[in-house]
Amino acid sequence: MRETLAEWRPAVDEAIADLVPREIDDDYLESFFGEPTYEYDSESIQQALADPLWELLDRGGKRWRAVLFLVFVDGFGEDPEEYLPYACIPEILHNGTIIVDDVEDGATKRRGGPALHHVYGQDVALNAGNAMYFLPLKILTENPADLPAEQRLAAYEMLMYELNRTHLGQGMDIYWHNECDTPVGTEEYLEMCACKTGCLARIVARLAAIITDQPAEVEEAVASYAELTAVAFQIGDDILDVENSLGRAGDFGKEFGNDVREGKKTLLVIHALEESPPEKARRLGELLEADENTDEEVLEALSILEEAGSIEYARERALDLAANARAELDAVAFDDETIQELEAFTTFVIERDE
Amino acid sequence: MRETLAEWRPAVDEAIADLVPREIDDDYLESFFGEPTYEYDSESIQQALADPLWELLDRGGKRWRAVLFLVFVDGFGEDPEEYLPYACIPEILHNGTIIVDDVEDGATKRRGGPALHHVYGQDVALNAGNAMYFLPLKILTENPADLPAEQRLAAYEMLMYELNRTHLGQGMDIYWHNECDTPVGTEEYLEMCACKTGCLARIVARLAAIITDQPAEVEEAVASYAELTAVAFQIGDDILDVENSLGRAGDFGKEFGNDVREGKKTLLVIHALEESPPEKARRLGELLEADENTDEEVLEALSILEEAGSIEYARERALDLAANARAELDAVAFDDETIQELEAFTTFVIERDE
Repeated sequence: MRETLAEWRPAVDEAIADLVPREIDDDYLESFFGEPTYEYDSESIQQALADPLWELLDRGGKRWRAVLFLVFVDGFGEDPEEYLPYACIPEILHNGTIIVDDVEDGATKRRGGPALHHVYGQDVALNAGNAMYFLPLKILTENPADLPAEQRLAAYEMLMYELNRTHLGQGMDIYWHNECDTPVGTEEYLEMCACKTGCLARIVARLAAIITDQPAEVEEAVASYAELTAVAFQIGDDILDVENSLGRAGDFGKEFGNDVREGKKTLLVIHALEESPPEKARRLGELLEADENTDEEVLEALSILEEAGSIEYARERALDLAANARAELDAVAFDDETIQELEAFTTFVIERDE
Repeated sequence: MRETLAEWRPAVDEAIADLVPREIDDDYLESFFGEPTYEYDSESIQQALADPLWELLDRGGKRWRAVLFLVFVDGFGEDPEEYLPYACIPEILHNGTIIVDDVEDGATKRRGGPALHHVYGQDVALNAGNAMYFLPLKILTENPADLPAEQRLAAYEMLMYELNRTHLGQGMDIYWHNECDTPVGTEEYLEMCACKTGCLARIVARLAAIITDQPAEVEEAVASYAELTAVAFQIGDDILDVENSLGRAGDFGKEFGNDVREGKKTLLVIHALEESPPEKARRLGELLEADENTDEEVLEALSILEEAGSIEYARERALDLAANARAELDAVAFDDETIQELEAFTTFVIERDE
């Protein structure tokens, strides 16, 4: 393995550039998409596909899905360099979902710039995002690790299974967002996270297990580790939004309390709705359902969450999930270094401050 | 085979209902998406997935992709009933692309009703459309025809190849639409059609060939038949838009000349831009680039197409493509009935009047 995880990033970006180069020409189009029946127009593919993809990647992102994949491969005793092209699969899938989610959520910003549909138009952004659901799967066909048919088939079936569940999770999230008065339970919220965020993490782990031919119980254990960690990550996000907002209470110039403004049913909200005195719970529901909130109203909602002990509750749930994630690793014969990296990751997802 | 092709439609809809039932419950969710880690919310999946899908299907559509698939299976000497679930794959993929394309194109109407994003909101419609890219592929995992790993792998790789090209075609179309002053050649236009419309037709043909284990040259021949027919279909569409519009010349109450209003670079437009006297060609370009056109301006553009002989030119190209499609069938040992059905289809796609 390279010295630090961050050192993998340039290598990952090179592998992505092998798949979708920054400059598109006819040679690339023919080698990747096959001979044209008539004639390709490389200029339109440059602008409709490669430019949006690289615009998003160049803005940042830690490529942690690719890096986590390589940690698993290394932990399974294989050379990560050899499996580098496969690291693009979860990474490009993830970036594709970001573009599409931003259109669905009407997001305006992403990684320090305007959301991609504000740069390229909704049509180009959406088509590029959707293309990124299929572009990286070409790697399984190119088969750089020379895998037998059974393993490649297992990889496709795993991807279809997880990508179906991803859309299930996104469907739950969107529906709850639109239908503000739908009551959402804790278990349903966790399921939404497990599907929407967890399935992409499961792809990272299961793909590493499948292509290095691990037994089913190992694949299941790392998939659970990844799912649990992803759900803890999502709850970490929910906590951060509230904590950073409370910290900015006196600083009305900045935007704060985004989740409350969006009426998002986070784990903290679900807890507070159940645990607050009836009058407070009713008021919280009212504030979340409102189309717009004043800064004072946002603060009121945040203080209801605080009084109900919802921040502590959510942190405990996240810590439990992270501990369960670590416990899954017992079933796998990883070396100490891999265990340390994977354990550190379960802590990072909750303790990060951005 | 059933007596007439239309008789297959109810059976196809039943097969689709086996995949995504009209009424979603927890039992279905567990059997299709696997055991939940926590708890599903069937109500949100009903509204976010099943309702949009069935709303679109119940509005009509001839299910011709499913039926054409069954004609191929029958022609290959196999029992179509046995392979019925696989007919859902191209059909649901197609309906998914319709939902997504309508968002990308900002369409307002679809099959006699509002476009789906106007009924369910853009977020729900998009997620449902995207989910339909993955839902039907579950059939390959369920494996009702008990196919060996090699054939299932071949089906996945074929699907990924064709779906990648579909997004390539859509990317070309969108880019040309946005960048009005990009010159588009005939060969590039045909390539866009071959990718955008042709690849879904190729999926119909190739899937039938793969799952019934045909030799490579047969798969290639039916794929070419399907692609050529699809491109002829697209040109038929372009001709219809102009002919119906000219027929309505005196009837300003109705909308006409949609392609001109959208500034679409159809085969007719490309021909007229190349073949008209310079002054007429310049004026046509100007009319197409304008954000809005009066009815008189639309008529002016249509008459430039007519004077350039672009309608006849496009019809000849479509007839050539249809003839080439029929010629591809010579390489396959189909019985006379199958040949007749497939030949009739190549004529229908050009001669239809809606």
